[in-house]
Amino acid sequence: MSEKTGPEKQSGTQLWAGRSSGNLSSIAVEMGESISLDIQLYREDLRASLAHARMLAHVGILDRAELKAIGDGLRQIRQEIESNSLPLRPELEDIHTHVENRLTEIIGEAGKKLHTARSRNDQIAVDMHLFVRRACAEIGAVWIGLLESLSKAAAREIDTILPGYTHLQVAQPVRLSHHLLAHFWSFARDLGRLKRAAKTAGDLPLGSGALAGVNYETDREFLREELGFTGIYANSMDAVSTRDYLLDFLYALSVFATHASRLAEELILWNSLEFGFVHLPDELTTGSSIMPQKKNPDLAELSRGKSGRMIANLMNLLVNLKSLPLTYNRDLQEDRQPVLDSYRQSLLIGRALQAMIEGAVFDRGRMRAAVERGFATATDLADALVSERGLSFREAHHLVGNLVARAAEHGTTLAGAPATLREAVSPLLKDDEFYTKAISLSASTERKVSAGGTAKHRQEEQLQHAGRELEVWKDFDWRSPDLSLASEDR
Amino acid sequence: MSEKTGPEKQSGTQLWAGRSSGNLSSIAVEMGESISLDIQLYREDLRASLAHARMLAHVGILDRAELKAIGDGLRQIRQEIESNSLPLRPELEDIHTHVENRLTEIIGEAGKKLHTARSRNDQIAVDMHLFVRRACAEIGAVWIGLLESLSKAAAREIDTILPGYTHLQVAQPVRLSHHLLAHFWSFARDLGRLKRAAKTAGDLPLGSGALAGVNYETDREFLREELGFTGIYANSMDAVSTRDYLLDFLYALSVFATHASRLAEELILWNSLEFGFVHLPDELTTGSSIMPQKKNPDLAELSRGKSGRMIANLMNLLVNLKSLPLTYNRDLQEDRQPVLDSYRQSLLIGRALQAMIEGAVFDRGRMRAAVERGFATATDLADALVSERGLSFREAHHLVGNLVARAAEHGTTLAGAPATLREAVSPLLKDDEFYTKAISLSASTERKVSAGGTAKHRQEEQLQHAGRELEVWKDFDWRSPDLSLASEDR
Amino acid sequence: MSEKTGPEKQSGTQLWAGRSSGNLSSIAVEMGESISLDIQLYREDLRASLAHARMLAHVGILDRAELKAIGDGLRQIRQEIESNSLPLRPELEDIHTHVENRLTEIIGEAGKKLHTARSRNDQIAVDMHLFVRRACAEIGAVWIGLLESLSKAAAREIDTILPGYTHLQVAQPVRLSHHLLAHFWSFARDLGRLKRAAKTAGDLPLGSGALAGVNYETDREFLREELGFTGIYANSMDAVSTRDYLLDFLYALSVFATHASRLAEELILWNSLEFGFVHLPDELTTGSSIMPQKKNPDLAELSRGKSGRMIANLMNLLVNLKSLPLTYNRDLQEDRQPVLDSYRQSLLIGRALQAMIEGAVFDRGRMRAAVERGFATATDLADALVSERGLSFREAHHLVGNLVARAAEHGTTLAGAPATLREAVSPLLKDDEFYTKAISLSASTERKVSAGGTAKHRQEEQLQHAGRELEVWKDFDWRSPDLSLASEDR
Amino acid sequence: MSEKTGPEKQSGTQLWAGRSSGNLSSIAVEMGESISLDIQLYREDLRASLAHARMLAHVGILDRAELKAIGDGLRQIRQEIESNSLPLRPELEDIHTHVENRLTEIIGEAGKKLHTARSRNDQIAVDMHLFVRRACAEIGAVWIGLLESLSKAAAREIDTILPGYTHLQVAQPVRLSHHLLAHFWSFARDLGRLKRAAKTAGDLPLGSGALAGVNYETDREFLREELGFTGIYANSMDAVSTRDYLLDFLYALSVFATHASRLAEELILWNSLEFGFVHLPDELTTGSSIMPQKKNPDLAELSRGKSGRMIANLMNLLVNLKSLPLTYNRDLQEDRQPVLDSYRQSLLIGRALQAMIEGAVFDRGRMRAAVERGFATATDLADALVSERGLSFREAHHLVGNLVARAAEHGTTLAGAPATLREAVSPLLKDDEFYTKAISLSASTERKVSAGGTAKHRQEEQLQHAGRELEVWKDFDWRSPDLSLASEDR
Repeated sequence: MSEKTGPEKQSGTQLWAGRSSGNLSSIAVEMGESISLDIQLYREDLRASLAHARMLAHVGILDRAELKAIGDGLRQIRQEIESNSLPLRPELEDIHTHVENRLTEIIGEAGKKLHTARSRNDQIAVDMHLFVRRACAEIGAVWIGLLESLSKAAAREIDTILPGYTHLQVAQPVRLSHHLLAHFWSFARDLGRLKRAAKTAGDLPLGSGALAGVNYETDREFLREELGFTGIYANSMDAVSTRDYLLDFLYALSVFATHASRLAEELILWNSLEFGFVHLPDELTTGSSIMPQKKNPDLAELSRGKSGRMIANLMNLLVNLKSLPLTYNRDLQEDRQPVLDSYRQSLLIGRALQAMIEGAVFDRGRMRAAVERGFATATDLADALVSERGLSFREAHHLVGNLVARAAEHGTTLAGAPATLREAVSPLLKDDEFYTKAISLSASTERKVSAGGTAKHRQEEQLQHAGRELEVWKDFDWRSPDLSLASEDR
Repeated sequence: MSEKTGPEKQSGTQLWAGRSSGNLSSIAVEMGESISLDIQLYREDLRASLAHARMLAHVGILDRAELKAIGDGLRQIRQEIESNSLPLRPELEDIHTHVENRLTEIIGEAGKKLHTARSRNDQIAVDMHLFVRRACAEIGAVWIGLLESLSKAAAREIDTILPGYTHLQVAQPVRLSHHLLAHFWSFARDLGRLKRAAKTAGDLPLGSGALAGVNYETDREFLREELGFTGIYANSMDAVSTRDYLLDFLYALSVFATHASRLAEELILWNSLEFGFVHLPDELTTGSSIMPQKKNPDLAELSRGKSGRMIANLMNLLVNLKSLPLTYNRDLQEDRQPVLDSYRQSLLIGRALQAMIEGAVFDRGRMRAAVERGFATATDLADALVSERGLSFREAHHLVGNLVARAAEHGTTLAGAPATLREAVSPLLKDDEFYTKAISLSASTERKVSAGGTAKHRQEEQLQHAGRELEVWKDFDWRSPDLSLASEDR
Repeated sequence: MSEKTGPEKQSGTQLWAGRSSGNLSSIAVEMGESISLDIQLYREDLRASLAHARMLAHVGILDRAELKAIGDGLRQIRQEIESNSLPLRPELEDIHTHVENRLTEIIGEAGKKLHTARSRNDQIAVDMHLFVRRACAEIGAVWIGLLESLSKAAAREIDTILPGYTHLQVAQPVRLSHHLLAHFWSFARDLGRLKRAAKTAGDLPLGSGALAGVNYETDREFLREELGFTGIYANSMDAVSTRDYLLDFLYALSVFATHASRLAEELILWNSLEFGFVHLPDELTTGSSIMPQKKNPDLAELSRGKSGRMIANLMNLLVNLKSLPLTYNRDLQEDRQPVLDSYRQSLLIGRALQAMIEGAVFDRGRMRAAVERGFATATDLADALVSERGLSFREAHHLVGNLVARAAEHGTTLAGAPATLREAVSPLLKDDEFYTKAISLSASTERKVSAGGTAKHRQEEQLQHAGRELEVWKDFDWRSPDLSLASEDR
Repeated sequence: MSEKTGPEKQSGTQLWAGRSSGNLSSIAVEMGESISLDIQLYREDLRASLAHARMLAHVGILDRAELKAIGDGLRQIRQEIESNSLPLRPELEDIHTHVENRLTEIIGEAGKKLHTARSRNDQIAVDMHLFVRRACAEIGAVWIGLLESLSKAAAREIDTILPGYTHLQVAQPVRLSHHLLAHFWSFARDLGRLKRAAKTAGDLPLGSGALAGVNYETDREFLREELGFTGIYANSMDAVSTRDYLLDFLYALSVFATHASRLAEELILWNSLEFGFVHLPDELTTGSSIMPQKKNPDLAELSRGKSGRMIANLMNLLVNLKSLPLTYNRDLQEDRQPVLDSYRQSLLIGRALQAMIEGAVFDRGRMRAAVERGFATATDLADALVSERGLSFREAHHLVGNLVARAAEHGTTLAGAPATLREAVSPLLKDDEFYTKAISLSASTERKVSAGGTAKHRQEEQLQHAGRELEVWKDFDWRSPDLSLASEDR
């Protein structure tokens, strides 16, 4: 995209004859076109054009008839695009030129007047701002669905106990609700970042012209209201050169992708034969005809792999912006590829994770067995020896260490260790009642009573907290722009 | 860092004899230590330990004497660190172990009790949260200084006219205030991102234990208040494994660095002989003894180059987090290098840019000459022919195009074109009064009357707006943590 | 793509009924398909299939009739794809399945036998290896064209003197040949990296099966020769999981993009009004109808901006690979997007730079003027005072420093400084002959006699060197695979 | 670093008085210094200076006495640095200035003459080239040690059978040698990339001056030989501005880090309780006093986490270089941080992986059990039904599918399935001899007879191949520069 402001553009095609795109070399046309991507912004472009026309009419630059003609023309173009009857032509470069050219074909000279008091520099900026606002709303809805699936699963699995891991080593027993909600809070923070991106994209750039403002007393407040923006860029040079709102958007999606990769990694691990903690439904896995137990967790793997793509998209734009002097530079046209790609990938990943969480059947037996196999309550036993049998920490731990070593040798667990084996380590370990209670998984989890801990009442508290968080997001107004072209302009 | 929770750690050194760090291989010690970096967190670590001790006393786990001993011990350690008399030992791995070991040396067994109800996993988390909160306040102060220098320079240069560029081509005349404020708004948004990072770091992780919570009815609300946090992590597993607050921090600094690289690029360009728009003071440039006009803008170049470093630091942590299962993994220890580095670089870049903006002498004559050489008001002339002489756009532009071509051939500007040359193009261009007004730079800027435009009253409006923005930031409470170890514990 | 090896796949569609893709959820189909990208590999896929069939016939697994049927079928499919008559169906996932399904439709059961002794894991690997080999040859040809344009321009501009810059400050006069050849050598090294990528992609992965090898005494040497590979992967697990050859490819393209961004930056600077060193042809720039001097260097800007995209594509795959256990994981399917994208962008950038270099008209006068304005030979004058007038360095530099300062005050250059002004500084500077020779640009360049320096004979030497380098590359055999499906199989 | 060439630098300190570093602002000193990092290059800097002095003497610019004085002075400085008696002063910026200043203190005016015909621009370039050459040799040695440990372990474990995974699902039985050698070949390719980086760093930049060459007929061939370079940069502007050799170096290390993260991930998985495939030695793990089975694989986690750091270091420099015009820009000073950091990390990771591979005890029983639990030979059974019992694939797979499903229901494996259960599925499965042979793990691996497959003779072949590869690397001459300052200059 190359800017050409207001009036001169109106008669532009002829005027820079000899240098028009018709004479551009093939490499210039091929490299310079953006229509193959920004056709995806057609609704934004048409809607912003309609708003601009209304503003021009409002301040008296267009008359009612012209406005009506423009409105009708834009509506017709929308239909043409949606029925695939508007051919895309690389030599027309971008969505703006396609719309303007077609509009002029349909309604004549009035079509050209639409370009008064704007330029392609603020046009693409307003399109992309509208797009980000729409995209945040769409992505937000998908992520909220994911949060919901996690909170439902957590509520259901509050009594499921699995190993809590550090270093991928069994550390302490935790409730599955606890584990699932840890992801819940990560994704909830992602919604916060998405909200922030939508807010950054909430300032109106339109009306900035090519860079310096326009030669008309336009009404940007009218435009702001018309397009549902919350603010207005204070500086026209900033408005056409900043891509902060796209960075905030790509960043929010990158962190989400990183979080997604962590959950995906766990689903892959848990779906392995060795962990065996989860069964994913057939419609979400692929497999082999003769190995019924082999279920490839493709969606989890793809979700994990796409984190590279989404981090890279953020990187792409950061590098692009590095060292760019003000204001608009053609480099900025390259913003579309990463933004449109990360948008789509975010929806896919969000839907895939939600589907997997909803479809997952957790194997409570395997989880419990893993906790036991991991001697996860050895510490609890030592603590009991201290508090109930009066040993020093040192003595207690030494003794439990011995017990664990012997149980491991015998291929058994703490729960499985017979009284004889225990007694051989120490008479203090013989008493069944004391011992059983001390090593009990549920007792262990119940001891983690600190706020945010894995004790059941703390989990119930947390589930309620999560429920409130979810309600906040469900009620949140993303201010997704209304992109319809309602025909009120008469 | 490798976590070992509460009690068992108290008697840890002896207990895992045979596997203690003394027996770790040299590669394990060398690779595993983090003290060479996290010594920079000593104030955070000591302060959090003091808060933890107070909380333990508050809930009755420590008695007053123990608390007093611990407080005195921590104060002594702080003095030792600040006087460089505490030796750093790689085999003690991290700042927590250094403090705990030294504390036990100083006050005996009570020192070990400090580890009750916490683990190194939530210790490092709280240290890093406190650090980010402090760092945001420090960086914020520097960036506010930069904003201030930009807004002052803008106020001073409101009547300086320079070329507004698109594609690094002279496009339209703009006021230098306009240009400088474009950067102002970018950096103001950076402060918004920094504030957001501080907010993410405003939740208290301490009290989460190794991952599952702790076996005590601790009082996290007490801790929150004591350390000035605004919230508490709802989920202990999340609290020890999330690094979102570091990502938000690194992201804010990366975008700042990108913005800085854009301003730096312009300072480099403007400081070149070819542009000649700015003179940087001697104390900020390096040069050659015999070429007085040669002033290398080293600080601008370094600011530009460091953008790579800071983008990379963000990337570093994003990649680190990719695919990590819950909860704490040793990989996370690698968070310190990028975070501490970007912190320092941000301060340097902020100070360097501020110094350059404050020291810059703008060459108004060169700027004005560049505008004229760029025929930047040719469009204005065409517009005047349309509005005042009744030509069509097409005719007007054709005619002005001819004039520009001839002026360029004669090596002159629009302002320099003699009446004869103008008349040869068209009699309409002959009239001096009409012509001079039409091509006047100041008249051109005054026509850009739209909100955010370059007209003087719009610039004054914007300066006031910027002033209000600046006040908001100056008044902003970053809630930097109080890291003093005031001796109130008696 | 999800692997299913050899025989079981032959009857696969029915066998994993109930879990076939027909029953996959829509998200699984939408997220899992790769055909929308890997249709670009159809020639590679068909060619590798033909080679595999020939190998199977060679070792007796297929009979001649089956081989002929397969060959005919593959040729028919190629025609169908090239005439757009083969519909792409997301539920068929990838190019391999599309080909196999269609082949079975056309020739019946023999089509299924083609899957004997291979899997989709080694199929996609061989397709991508073939693609990289082809892509290197195509990209190499474009880059060699760029080298050629640089060396031609260098030869033409050997007598053009421009400022050599450090810190974007005029430093010393250099020949334009010298400057252009600096880029030549950068791009020549890029060809070296591309060659290396082609070499890494020169090992044959086909024949590795899903991961462990296949249950047949196949002949991989036959396959190697048939497909023109130079080596064979020694380890089947490595063969299906490595993406090193794609990393080497993406890396070579990333460094190229970085080099391209540096040349592009200079074209943008030089094309600015302030530098004015180059005129780019109309067909490569866009502009404004009324400002003939305004030529937006869009191709250079896009080339510069695309560096972000290409660095990001490398990053994408590096992050994807991070932490992946052996062997094939579905994450790897994400390799296609960055690889195909960087391939296309490299061709565009290479062609754009070549077109600009070929079309560039260098403004020798502006370049020379910039050298003089930059007092670039002040050092030479000081040297002459030392060597011919017996001053100490200190005295000479002090004196020349004074002269430069006065000349700058008078707005003149060294060449322009009148004898009176010179004499006022020192009588030693008065003599015209001495002075003129000492400050002569050509004399200055001629003094840079060291190897690789800017003296003319050194430049001529370098041009010859560059010519030899170019010849080497023109003669280089990229071993681009022959992807035709010649009908020799009877 | 800011370049100042030849003569004027000799008397520089006084000459640019008023602008000397003494007058630089504190931010300029703090931001501009590089000595805190490039002190690590002192050996390279001293050696290159000695070579330069010898060359100057060789061409007659220095006399013997001066050369001797310089040589003695450089040797003295080396001793001072190595005994920590040379204070580092930020205001002296870099290693070159520290050396030059100290040399002049020691030997007087002759010290200044050393700067004749060179500049800091080619000095830092030659230092960094020498460093990369040294670093490649050091890193190469460590990586070769890693290769050796893998090949030894592979030879030892040729009869150990473990699951080959795809999608982290048990796919087919493979030999552990096969798996370990897959990593071997990855790392072997890394050595290839390292060799390439050393080659890129094999061209001599010294003698290029600030950018344009120097005013002396120097002898770069003499320098080349003296410093053991293999080539000479053909273009002085290229020589001072390229950082390709650092990119190649950082790239090689990044890919290595990615490979390392894959092996590390597997060690972490295998070391988990759930997999239980490996026991890492105590001196390489950390743990808890009372859970003998808990061994945190810290070195593997750190190796995995550091991949983010090393990818980021590559990214850092790529971004830095983006858009930089020729020739030297101060941005380039930022190359040191990523290069020195990745160098150190590579050594750590290499040593850590080698130590783990050497210390690892593989649990053959657990591996075998996992293969059986994964029904990894179900395909083999189906194949046998086809080849030995005449069933169609379809029938065979259907039948085996049934068997697997029943065995899974009964919680048993193929090997564990009693004849009654088998017969209930089909009489064809009843025969013990047929059945046992068909499902045998070793028979399955023996069927993978294709080149590169897991059959034992193929593994033996591959081990020999790996042995030859290892020999090649052990014999490889990295041409590490001799950095001693032997006192031959008399």
